[in-house]
Amino acid sequence: MASLGRTFRLLRLLPAELQTSHVKPAVAFRVSSSTRNFSTEELPDGTFKASDVEVTLTAPHKLQAKPDVGNLIFGRTFTDHMFTVEWDKQAQWGKPQIKPMGNLPIHPAAKVLHYAIELFEGMKAYRGVDGRIRLFRPDLNMQRILRGAKRAMLPTFDPNEFIGCIKKLVKIEQEWIPHSETSSLYIRPTYIGTDPSLGVALSNNAMLYIILCPVGPYFATGFKPVSLYADPKYVRAWPGGCGDQKLGSNYGPTVFVQKTAEARGQQQVLWLYGEDHQLTEVGTMNIFFVVRNANGEKELITPPLNGLILPGVTRFSVLDLCREWKELKITERTITMAEVQQLTKENRLLEMFGAGTACIVCPVCSISYLGEKIDIPTAEQENPVYMKVLNTLSNIFYGKINHPWGVLVD
Amino acid sequence: MASLGRTFRLLRLLPAELQTSHVKPAVAFRVSSSTRNFSTEELPDGTFKASDVEVTLTAPHKLQAKPDVGNLIFGRTFTDHMFTVEWDKQAQWGKPQIKPMGNLPIHPAAKVLHYAIELFEGMKAYRGVDGRIRLFRPDLNMQRILRGAKRAMLPTFDPNEFIGCIKKLVKIEQEWIPHSETSSLYIRPTYIGTDPSLGVALSNNAMLYIILCPVGPYFATGFKPVSLYADPKYVRAWPGGCGDQKLGSNYGPTVFVQKTAEARGQQQVLWLYGEDHQLTEVGTMNIFFVVRNANGEKELITPPLNGLILPGVTRFSVLDLCREWKELKITERTITMAEVQQLTKENRLLEMFGAGTACIVCPVCSISYLGEKIDIPTAEQENPVYMKVLNTLSNIFYGKINHPWGVLVD
Repeated sequence: MASLGRTFRLLRLLPAELQTSHVKPAVAFRVSSSTRNFSTEELPDGTFKASDVEVTLTAPHKLQAKPDVGNLIFGRTFTDHMFTVEWDKQAQWGKPQIKPMGNLPIHPAAKVLHYAIELFEGMKAYRGVDGRIRLFRPDLNMQRILRGAKRAMLPTFDPNEFIGCIKKLVKIEQEWIPHSETSSLYIRPTYIGTDPSLGVALSNNAMLYIILCPVGPYFATGFKPVSLYADPKYVRAWPGGCGDQKLGSNYGPTVFVQKTAEARGQQQVLWLYGEDHQLTEVGTMNIFFVVRNANGEKELITPPLNGLILPGVTRFSVLDLCREWKELKITERTITMAEVQQLTKENRLLEMFGAGTACIVCPVCSISYLGEKIDIPTAEQENPVYMKVLNTLSNIFYGKINHPWGVLVD
Repeated sequence: MASLGRTFRLLRLLPAELQTSHVKPAVAFRVSSSTRNFSTEELPDGTFKASDVEVTLTAPHKLQAKPDVGNLIFGRTFTDHMFTVEWDKQAQWGKPQIKPMGNLPIHPAAKVLHYAIELFEGMKAYRGVDGRIRLFRPDLNMQRILRGAKRAMLPTFDPNEFIGCIKKLVKIEQEWIPHSETSSLYIRPTYIGTDPSLGVALSNNAMLYIILCPVGPYFATGFKPVSLYADPKYVRAWPGGCGDQKLGSNYGPTVFVQKTAEARGQQQVLWLYGEDHQLTEVGTMNIFFVVRNANGEKELITPPLNGLILPGVTRFSVLDLCREWKELKITERTITMAEVQQLTKENRLLEMFGAGTACIVCPVCSISYLGEKIDIPTAEQENPVYMKVLNTLSNIFYGKINHPWGVLVD
């Protein structure tokens, strides 16, 4: 899996000041999708094991009817079962369980409710054209959740055991995976600090759980390009913060800004940073540009992993694919609004799109910025890059091509 | 209550760019501790009412023994009852309840667990020398929670009704208020988004609740000055963010840094911002300096409410008292590490202290900064300002002087 080596080098090449350099490079960053076991030294907090999962099935008469995937709103319909495992500083990991989906009993002083000791992942399971079920690069999600756990001061665990638990849950819920090539089963691993005490301190109790949602296409408007609202007065992430982590604390403050965008008639927020109005992310997605550069070459540009950017699994995959194709120059660098304005004026900005697990790719048609509307001709390109990326990823997701990124569940 | 007018003017005088100017000035900012009712227009989400609170008492045999206040660790011991009220976009406010303290049943997709849609307040109830129970400036906490609710897109409510609910709960739990002039009953109003759906969007369900903890002195070391760890690579808040709100998202990311400080042998984190290493806050407290200025005057300096600073109730109170005393020049302005170094070298930095509800005031003895240890002679002053502040506030808390800031519960 040559591309993985490349991905990891990128992570290690971050400027020391901007990466969360106080967090030692996670051992897990070297994990492949093999089932190599972790040594005790690598797992200071021990681990739970997939083979220990205790399964309690929902009574047959309580199973829900499967929904019409055509009418699904993202994240509102859940399957019948969930996974949970709890950790306690003294007792360490408890018994991992798959059990009927239901409310969690949480102490009102739990740190997750007061101080946002919480992180999550977004993954998907796909039903292939061959009838088999696949995850997509789950090892990358495991690296990120373990890096986030260290930053949130929650215990680590063996990522391969957690992948094993995810697979067990997905197998039990396999009838929930839509028979559709635009739909999938969204997997939401969630990790919360449950310690019932009000000190702003590390959590001596934690719960790791997984819930599942069948999902259709992410955006209500379908695959139509989206309009963006860019206002430099709202800043998502900053140097010295945690913008490169999938922590809950990065998301709550964005809801107000998203509603501001919607009230203005735009669909998503374009997040800017700095005096020079660098473009960093769009909504909850990484961002990509296809430009005709000064040398006349077609160039793919995405902001670098400088601490302000979430290291998205889809982001890595877009870069890996485009590097493999050798049709574009690939550049990870900062891009500013002034440059976007200039490129647009010179008709050299060809495509702009977001990329993330929920939406895969999301073309952009315009940016509203300081009273100006900048039109982006993403939808007008012949054979656009975003579409080739989407088609290739879809072929991997749905098993039309055999690729190491598609990890079989069975 | 003349000082209130001053406080509110400060808030309104923020530079437009840095205050959360997109949030319209909350109507609640004009609320006094009177019981003026809100008009429908001011309460778009309606309100619950203190007179509607339904009380379910814990069975007598289940009441806990009261703890020894001398051995209390902050935030680990809770009283027998809690307050809850739920909100639903359709049904609006449900019935407010006081009921036995217990776990909250929370849906595993609740937005609070994923996206940190959460905020809280810190308040205290004191048992006075006259046997009566007092809150301290609860109207200021109400202003802040309502401003935070708007930023988190949770519904507003009538702050006077919520104060009424707090009083009801405190009255029921009055035996938990320590008979001690260094202890109190900590009040933790908490407001969470409970909508069970995974979209990063506003929450259509919410729960507002209150839990109570009897507390002794905040710091384990007692009232000894604390040592600080200052490292510019960790940034708590930034322009365009929410550092001036009591949102859960401001706290989770700080735990790692606090543990880093402790591992180095320092007790609290001093938060810096910007190229010039501005001092912003200490731990979860606002920060104050007493200096001998260039004119030979004694001057109290605290960072301004520029968007990076939590508008603390204790901060307002320290400023209000010191202005009333007219013994010091009072300045709200940015102060940098270079200035602290210079002042120290010239023996002109007399005191440095944190201020917050949990600790009231907390003297500082040193700062570890980029390999240097800067000693601060806070503990060596005769009649230090921080001690006069503490004594005056204590006199108000415990009813030794009659003051409008001390609001009677009965």
